[in-house]
Amino acid sequence: MPRLGEIHGPEDLRALTPPQVRALAPQIRRLLVDTCTVTGGHLGPNLGVVELTLALHRVFHSPRDRILWDTGHQSYVHKMLTGRTEDFPTLRRAGGLSGYPSRAESEHDVIENSHASTVLSWADGLARAHALRGVTDRAVVAVLGDGALTGGMAWEALNNIAAAPERPVIVVLNDNGRSYAPTAGALATHLAALRGPDAPRPLFESLGMAYLGPVDGHDIEALETALRRAAGLGRPVVVHCLTEKGRGHLPAEQDETDRFHAVRAASAKKPGGAPSWTSVFGRELADLADDRPDVVALTAAMLDPTGLSEFARRHPERTIDVGIAEQHAVTAAAGLALGGMHPVVALYATFLNRAFDQLLMDVALHRAPVTFVLDRAGVTGDDGPSHNGMWDLSLLNLVPGLRLAVPRDAATLRRALREALSCHDAPTALRFPKGASGEDIPAVSTFAGTDVLRRGERPDVLLVSVGAMAATCLDVAGRLAAQGVGVTVVDPRWVKPVAPELVALALDHRLVATVEDNGRAGGVGTQVAQALSDAGAAPPVRTFGIPQHFLSHGSRAQVLESCGLTARHLTRALLESLPAGRDAAREEAAAPSLALGGR
Amino acid sequence: MPRLGEIHGPEDLRALTPPQVRALAPQIRRLLVDTCTVTGGHLGPNLGVVELTLALHRVFHSPRDRILWDTGHQSYVHKMLTGRTEDFPTLRRAGGLSGYPSRAESEHDVIENSHASTVLSWADGLARAHALRGVTDRAVVAVLGDGALTGGMAWEALNNIAAAPERPVIVVLNDNGRSYAPTAGALATHLAALRGPDAPRPLFESLGMAYLGPVDGHDIEALETALRRAAGLGRPVVVHCLTEKGRGHLPAEQDETDRFHAVRAASAKKPGGAPSWTSVFGRELADLADDRPDVVALTAAMLDPTGLSEFARRHPERTIDVGIAEQHAVTAAAGLALGGMHPVVALYATFLNRAFDQLLMDVALHRAPVTFVLDRAGVTGDDGPSHNGMWDLSLLNLVPGLRLAVPRDAATLRRALREALSCHDAPTALRFPKGASGEDIPAVSTFAGTDVLRRGERPDVLLVSVGAMAATCLDVAGRLAAQGVGVTVVDPRWVKPVAPELVALALDHRLVATVEDNGRAGGVGTQVAQALSDAGAAPPVRTFGIPQHFLSHGSRAQVLESCGLTARHLTRALLESLPAGRDAAREEAAAPSLALGGR
Repeated sequence: MPRLGEIHGPEDLRALTPPQVRALAPQIRRLLVDTCTVTGGHLGPNLGVVELTLALHRVFHSPRDRILWDTGHQSYVHKMLTGRTEDFPTLRRAGGLSGYPSRAESEHDVIENSHASTVLSWADGLARAHALRGVTDRAVVAVLGDGALTGGMAWEALNNIAAAPERPVIVVLNDNGRSYAPTAGALATHLAALRGPDAPRPLFESLGMAYLGPVDGHDIEALETALRRAAGLGRPVVVHCLTEKGRGHLPAEQDETDRFHAVRAASAKKPGGAPSWTSVFGRELADLADDRPDVVALTAAMLDPTGLSEFARRHPERTIDVGIAEQHAVTAAAGLALGGMHPVVALYATFLNRAFDQLLMDVALHRAPVTFVLDRAGVTGDDGPSHNGMWDLSLLNLVPGLRLAVPRDAATLRRALREALSCHDAPTALRFPKGASGEDIPAVSTFAGTDVLRRGERPDVLLVSVGAMAATCLDVAGRLAAQGVGVTVVDPRWVKPVAPELVALALDHRLVATVEDNGRAGGVGTQVAQALSDAGAAPPVRTFGIPQHFLSHGSRAQVLESCGLTARHLTRALLESLPAGRDAAREEAAAPSLALGGR
Repeated sequence: MPRLGEIHGPEDLRALTPPQVRALAPQIRRLLVDTCTVTGGHLGPNLGVVELTLALHRVFHSPRDRILWDTGHQSYVHKMLTGRTEDFPTLRRAGGLSGYPSRAESEHDVIENSHASTVLSWADGLARAHALRGVTDRAVVAVLGDGALTGGMAWEALNNIAAAPERPVIVVLNDNGRSYAPTAGALATHLAALRGPDAPRPLFESLGMAYLGPVDGHDIEALETALRRAAGLGRPVVVHCLTEKGRGHLPAEQDETDRFHAVRAASAKKPGGAPSWTSVFGRELADLADDRPDVVALTAAMLDPTGLSEFARRHPERTIDVGIAEQHAVTAAAGLALGGMHPVVALYATFLNRAFDQLLMDVALHRAPVTFVLDRAGVTGDDGPSHNGMWDLSLLNLVPGLRLAVPRDAATLRRALREALSCHDAPTALRFPKGASGEDIPAVSTFAGTDVLRRGERPDVLLVSVGAMAATCLDVAGRLAAQGVGVTVVDPRWVKPVAPELVALALDHRLVATVEDNGRAGGVGTQVAQALSDAGAAPPVRTFGIPQHFLSHGSRAQVLESCGLTARHLTRALLESLPAGRDAAREEAAAPSLALGGR
């Protein structure tokens, strides 16, 4: 019997007999469990696609044939079978294997997508390119989950793929009946009916596509037969494979929440400590909703990850899971608001990018009192470039009338949520990072809604701290104070609109700096700088944030370090930025602030 | 027989006999044609829904029942029947009726959406709100075209609507077989099959919805019967109505391009003059593609409006209409690039908002050489708040690695397109406004890709002109020169990334100003200001652009005036902004510029 370590590429796999191939499955599962338990990662989905991945790599010849993975976190087995078994224990570590396909890692990784429902569009484009260029010997195979079919763009793609019988695209539907949670909606009911004794006509056929299945997704030979047949059809086809998420790992199979969709790294599982931002939000929302029958919560297939489980337990009738369908979630929220409810749309920050038009046109133009709660904002780290929430503040800054809060700790998160829910004539948004909320950071005073976290002895630097950067900013202020530079640290809490009082305070300082864990382009810093510029003569403004690049994966601390968003880096940068240098700053400390500010 | 002018609301309509109702149809069509011929507007779609709108307002009791119009430009007849016949000739004029539903105009206008495919999500949210609040006497009726069903979010919504048999939503499918152009894709084939003698099972039924039809959409009594039956079902239902776009107006019925989808105002139909931006782009792309077999063009159901007709005539096999499916268009373009093609995605600027995530994750993260061409960028004016392209520069500024051009005239548009098509390792975008391209504006010199349009006699003001604002900026420079202020006007042509040489030049000036017809938040101005701030001691930067509000409809000139984007306004603002006032500017004219710039 072969050992997994001896499989260095798909060609090794194709040389095996069926019993030999079957013998690999338990070895793969063992490596998945052993690694993910240590590194964290998407265990459940990969346990479900062991046999499917084996079959795909025996029937198709990657990289000549193009195997495209939707929501790339289901590609771990693919990584093992394409020469990366040895490196697999480095998964999701800085310098190690990515948790998603990575073109830098392997020629077998064609696309690096990690947001769901996109793969059919990739496949349609690639098949069109092949047709235009006369390429006929390369199959285009797109693997996607049933959950991904709830995303509208998958239907936009099917509408195109199905319309071209001359362009074969092989759609492998990995139907495990769930994404994070059981798949929502009428489509799931339809797919379930296809498994039954009196199966209706598959709606893929109504669109003109061929349909094969359902196939037992854990029977390698049955899968190979179906995939070969699909490849031979020469026209667009759906191969409907039934798989079990978490398969072969008893704790995952028995988990009712999400079948170990994603497990946390061993090092991350600290007992006790500060509650997560997510849980603070989830508890507060459930509490508020006890007294507010108009509050309704929406999730796009991520009830538990966005902290809505407690709300759902206490207010099930007001909990809406729309599927992986952010566009619909946002506009349906506008509809709910039109009907007199106050919807709370809970999303990962990065997924707001999928519904910007709906936020703008359906929510903001209609001044609908919808509250957006964005989790995993800022640097998330180990999920890599596609999961960092570094775009949301810039997007939200564009939205007319929207009010935007960035809480710095659990207390300000609870407060911002209460304030958001009491806003009845405009949309609101709040965003917070992944992980533990840390210690509460008290204000020493407050003006016009802005918390002063530390008052500088001299009006040298006004440091505008955005959200969870508060602790770092206070650290910076301490370091600068030790060098004789006076630093006042303020947290606007609501960063949009920029308060006139904050502008007035800024005009009194020699240097203004903003610190946010959002992309620098269009971030809070640019808004503060613009407001100061609009107010006339203004001190220089330094805007610190994430450089506008895609970030490599690593821990949050590693990534923040690489972005210069640490106390050490910021202190040095500010010292260099002080208009007349830091020595001058000390010497001029006694000069009247207004004269300095007014230039 | 009743006169249209005597119908002051739906109740008047419901008092009529069927023959009396029928007699209104030709009167409505006459007013549609007479008005749109003068004011411009969406004539074809409204000619197609005359009988449907009459039937809807007789069966349902608006505003108690909620009639929701997808792509609100099909609401003209609805406006007439809800008390706005007298005002109808003011359509799309500043201060007159909006070309879309408007809550300010009437309680019968519930949602103001104009971007397609959203209405089913509105309906789902509203029906959920009714269910949660125990409201049982208000029907939710969503009217959408077959073209809108090619948009993915319509399927996200259907997936939710169809899953809840207890929440009735009445979907009125206005099937005229086309949006701008004939509807693309497999769905259109399916809908056509439903008209045939051996109709297949409608896929709406596969999802669990009821289906009624097809109904003759110009037979008022048949429509009323079907709508009453739908209302009586008490569960989600699709009423499939067959209509003819342009119906009853011979020139529209016979138009092969778009059945008079939108006609231009009489005043806009000037013979001769400068060619439109659209046509300059369309011709140049077709020419370039003659020698570039890898160039392929994509449109989201707007072949002709985005200028691709010529390209399609000459390169039909390389012309792709994906339907109203911007998300798919963008990711399919990434797939085409992966397959070795150079895709050009032609969109209206405002619709890029629908595919930001795909632009970011599928195109930019993969460094796919896709070129985006955004028409109707900046202030479009008479289509109202949802059609102004005031977001695109801010969005594109966020995209890592993307290069962004804003041509100022036909010559620079052609040049930018050539440069974009020669970029093989990164995405590119160009954007231009609606209307005529005007006279070419020559550069007096060029450095590092930046065109100098006018050189100031003294380094007082550096005016950074973005795209079509060049003529205005030159006007400003002339006015300021007359006051003794030296103004250098530059056009970076490629506004992203900001060229270091532009930053160096800016540091030599006493004041820097940017002028763009994009929202001020996150626009080019903020990027220039940030680049200057990053470079150390920097002169003040004034960023002129569209205030971050939704703009009322009016002519482009009227809207620009209201935004302060005219030479007169800008001149005054700059005079007030000069650091030491304009008198000082004159006096200090001889001082060395570096000292001034260095502050």
